[in-house]
Amino acid sequence: MEITRRDLFRVSAATAIAGAMSRVALAADDPLASWNDGAPKKAILDFVHATTDQSSSKFVPEPERIATFDQDGTLWVEHPMYTQVVYCFDRVPAVVKAKPELANVEPFKTVLSGNREAIAKLTMDDLFKILAATVTGMDVDQFEAEAKQWLDTARHPRWKQPYTALVYLPMIEVLNYMRANGYRTYIVTGGGQDFVRVYSDRTYSIPPEQVIGTAGGTTYGYDESGRPFLTKDPRLLLNDNYAGKPEGIHLMIGRRPYAAFGNSTGDRQMCEYTKAGDGERLAMLVLHDDVNREYAYGPAQGLPDTKVGTFTQALYDEAKSKGWTVISMKSDWKRIFGFS
Amino acid sequence: MEITRRDLFRVSAATAIAGAMSRVALAADDPLASWNDGAPKKAILDFVHATTDQSSSKFVPEPERIATFDQDGTLWVEHPMYTQVVYCFDRVPAVVKAKPELANVEPFKTVLSGNREAIAKLTMDDLFKILAATVTGMDVDQFEAEAKQWLDTARHPRWKQPYTALVYLPMIEVLNYMRANGYRTYIVTGGGQDFVRVYSDRTYSIPPEQVIGTAGGTTYGYDESGRPFLTKDPRLLLNDNYAGKPEGIHLMIGRRPYAAFGNSTGDRQMCEYTKAGDGERLAMLVLHDDVNREYAYGPAQGLPDTKVGTFTQALYDEAKSKGWTVISMKSDWKRIFGFS
Repeated sequence: MEITRRDLFRVSAATAIAGAMSRVALAADDPLASWNDGAPKKAILDFVHATTDQSSSKFVPEPERIATFDQDGTLWVEHPMYTQVVYCFDRVPAVVKAKPELANVEPFKTVLSGNREAIAKLTMDDLFKILAATVTGMDVDQFEAEAKQWLDTARHPRWKQPYTALVYLPMIEVLNYMRANGYRTYIVTGGGQDFVRVYSDRTYSIPPEQVIGTAGGTTYGYDESGRPFLTKDPRLLLNDNYAGKPEGIHLMIGRRPYAAFGNSTGDRQMCEYTKAGDGERLAMLVLHDDVNREYAYGPAQGLPDTKVGTFTQALYDEAKSKGWTVISMKSDWKRIFGFS
Repeated sequence: MEITRRDLFRVSAATAIAGAMSRVALAADDPLASWNDGAPKKAILDFVHATTDQSSSKFVPEPERIATFDQDGTLWVEHPMYTQVVYCFDRVPAVVKAKPELANVEPFKTVLSGNREAIAKLTMDDLFKILAATVTGMDVDQFEAEAKQWLDTARHPRWKQPYTALVYLPMIEVLNYMRANGYRTYIVTGGGQDFVRVYSDRTYSIPPEQVIGTAGGTTYGYDESGRPFLTKDPRLLLNDNYAGKPEGIHLMIGRRPYAAFGNSTGDRQMCEYTKAGDGERLAMLVLHDDVNREYAYGPAQGLPDTKVGTFTQALYDEAKSKGWTVISMKSDWKRIFGFS
């Protein structure tokens, strides 16, 4: 095929038309349709406009456009228990069957008792012990297959939906909107990195390499046939909470985010680190103040600060004083879930 | 602007023309122009064709197209010393000035002596000690600035070129060619992750988040003004050599590569892990057999297997028996450097 100058001109004219069309489409459809008008929605739109407008002094080149999102309580429901903790508890009987000596050892004994009150009192240390015991020695492929199967069948006690259906529609819109504007979206979660990677792509359109989470080591070895495989081991490489979030971001990305979204004291340092960068930066915290449509916990309810995942009064005050935007689920979100 | 159906048709016709043009351009220009015709060049072209052709049974969807590249000896010169080791040695006087008690402690004493023969005998353990001492306690931004400055001024003893000019042109072509075909290219190096990230983008067009290397921990803290920053600390999180390469790939990417390139026993497990995946996989090893244009070391020269970076006879035999392609610098590369 011969290609003339005229063809070349047509290509560039058509490219201009296509560009104009996509801008028209963007203006016509509200990318944040599940958000009520208000300061948080405006903060997101203004931030994206300012950092993607080449004529703006706040313009950010595309390779540097990184946005990080906590998961539990920020992208999906974390009550009454973190999904991954439910998963680990569900695995305890199988683990104890394989190692019967654990039946009389805490915290396994408490989990097996089914006593909800006692289970609710387990500490983060207890949870780490259970987590390590339930995954140590597993082939990473086997872990992935089992977690996938569990996610397909497990249901949330309140909504009777798969856990992956309990994502917040307004936050899915933020993820899509930022990606459409050249941002790479990362999950930065206290949850297990390998666990979240199992469903991040189909649930959030976030590929495994953009999931940073609490991570243990693996050990490379061989099966009887000489096939190499990786086994999960109990070494903790990254506790991706609090200061561990900026440390994990440095380890896995090596760039400071321009935008960070969280909902708890575990996200404080990530927000702080993000805002400490030059130029325009966005930090936002989801406040769970909607007892009817979801849950209400945190400063509005005066709940004590005893667990990871708590939005304390101190964090609320810091956010207000430092210009981190607080998102009220009750006031700012028209809809919460996609299924309702 | 009103957009008609006819405009839409023009857009898609123009897109088809543009697609055809890029295919024509690809056929006309050899993407691996610095390679001589031969089995290695053919292996790369065949692999990319097979895995990117939708009608092929070996087709790989774009998000899964991951290619990993060792750095030292694979993408750039590693003799007579790894570049990062040269950097650390150059920093030793400043470190000893700050901590004079190190002057009489090994391995610092040997480095300060300038005795080349003794320096050449330092072990990997010694190098780790020096590495830890030269970076521990540094602000990561300060580390980046100092490494950048060193790279701008340091010159390789043989070619009198900046180290970043000593990249292999044929491998740069492979990186570009694979990226043009939807592969994401990662560096997976035994070198320090933070060090390589300083120049990976400008040298290889590989962004920091696609550099996996030997990595230490960092600690989040605050300066006097309350500004948060990360400090490098001596904890080793990932020793990205040997089995550490597949372990690091799992940690940082969470997907198995389809193609892996290396040059030494430190890359053996990465090649093995890559080839153990389903479908078409590519593993290639660069053999340094060109004493005139670069260096000759490894099995052809019968050198002893004493250091990381050695291409042993055992590795050579394994590569041949398992279908990993060995690249002869002497026979397969028309040109080695971009500057000559």
